[in-house]
Amino acid sequence: MDEVSAKRGRPRDERARKAILRAARDLLLEDGYAALTVEGIARRAGVGRQTVYRWWQGKADVALEAMNAQAELEIAATDLAAFVRETFIVAPRYVPALSGLMAHAQLDPAFAARFRAEFLDRRRAALIALVRAELPALDPEYAADLVFGTLWYLVLTRPDRLDAEFADRMYETLHAQRP
Amino acid sequence: MDEVSAKRGRPRDERARKAILRAARDLLLEDGYAALTVEGIARRAGVGRQTVYRWWQGKADVALEAMNAQAELEIAATDLAAFVRETFIVAPRYVPALSGLMAHAQLDPAFAARFRAEFLDRRRAALIALVRAELPALDPEYAADLVFGTLWYLVLTRPDRLDAEFADRMYETLHAQRP
Repeated sequence: MDEVSAKRGRPRDERARKAILRAARDLLLEDGYAALTVEGIARRAGVGRQTVYRWWQGKADVALEAMNAQAELEIAATDLAAFVRETFIVAPRYVPALSGLMAHAQLDPAFAARFRAEFLDRRRAALIALVRAELPALDPEYAADLVFGTLWYLVLTRPDRLDAEFADRMYETLHAQRP
Repeated sequence: MDEVSAKRGRPRDERARKAILRAARDLLLEDGYAALTVEGIARRAGVGRQTVYRWWQGKADVALEAMNAQAELEIAATDLAAFVRETFIVAPRYVPALSGLMAHAQLDPAFAARFRAEFLDRRRAALIALVRAELPALDPEYAADLVFGTLWYLVLTRPDRLDAEFADRMYETLHAQRP
């Protein structure tokens, strides 16, 4: 491939990558993680299965990157109260996606490490930055355990409790912590 | 079967049930949930596989009952601080069992309902009784979300953080809640 074709290739690759991530997100929202297949993602994105496998090891990794992009898009608040609120309000739509990814992580230790580094730790880092700015006396790691602990427990066992009221209560809990 | 045989049968059944639950617990502690099989449980308990299937649908249900019995045995504190402490101190040994059961519940909705009713809700009920007695102004359901939320999140994603210090911090968090 000459230099011009290589350069031309990049935007097309970028378009294909984005189409695949959008397709995965849409399928996750419609049918959940269990029903997701690489075949289905490729068909929806209008690419061949091999194009998916060029960038990802399988459906778990496509779903992970799609959920990561979606979380960064939908949870963009720059203050702590709004961030916690958005997190708890957005989560219910993604319960079948998130619970499937967490279950898969328990069964596949290599994926668990990627899931933690590329999703769980990024969500924690976003929250921790806001805790440091607004509640500097509070241990930000413990704050992240409280917020994401209750969030994931509700996602996995009682998603009907995920709402703005719960989020506001959690925000008050963070404020009530003694340093 | 006449009345006498039926009566005689009961203690033997009870012994077999207990041997099966002990075998499941020991195997869970040694090798975790993924490696557990009905065949392995039966062999360890000295019974046939059919004896296991007489009382349980499969390995998930044996593991569920074994973990429930074990939790009631090991977490027997009658005050809130000690209960939270015991919960966080006992959990690390059972991480491979608990994470496997939670993952299985995400993949099998019928099992999820039994897991919730026969394990998660029982653990909540034990905690809620102590919260009602010691912190009557606190919403006990929210207290259970905080304690078991962080507990399960740590079990599933960072079990190295489960310890007595974390438990004591959680106990302080419950105390710091505004009614």
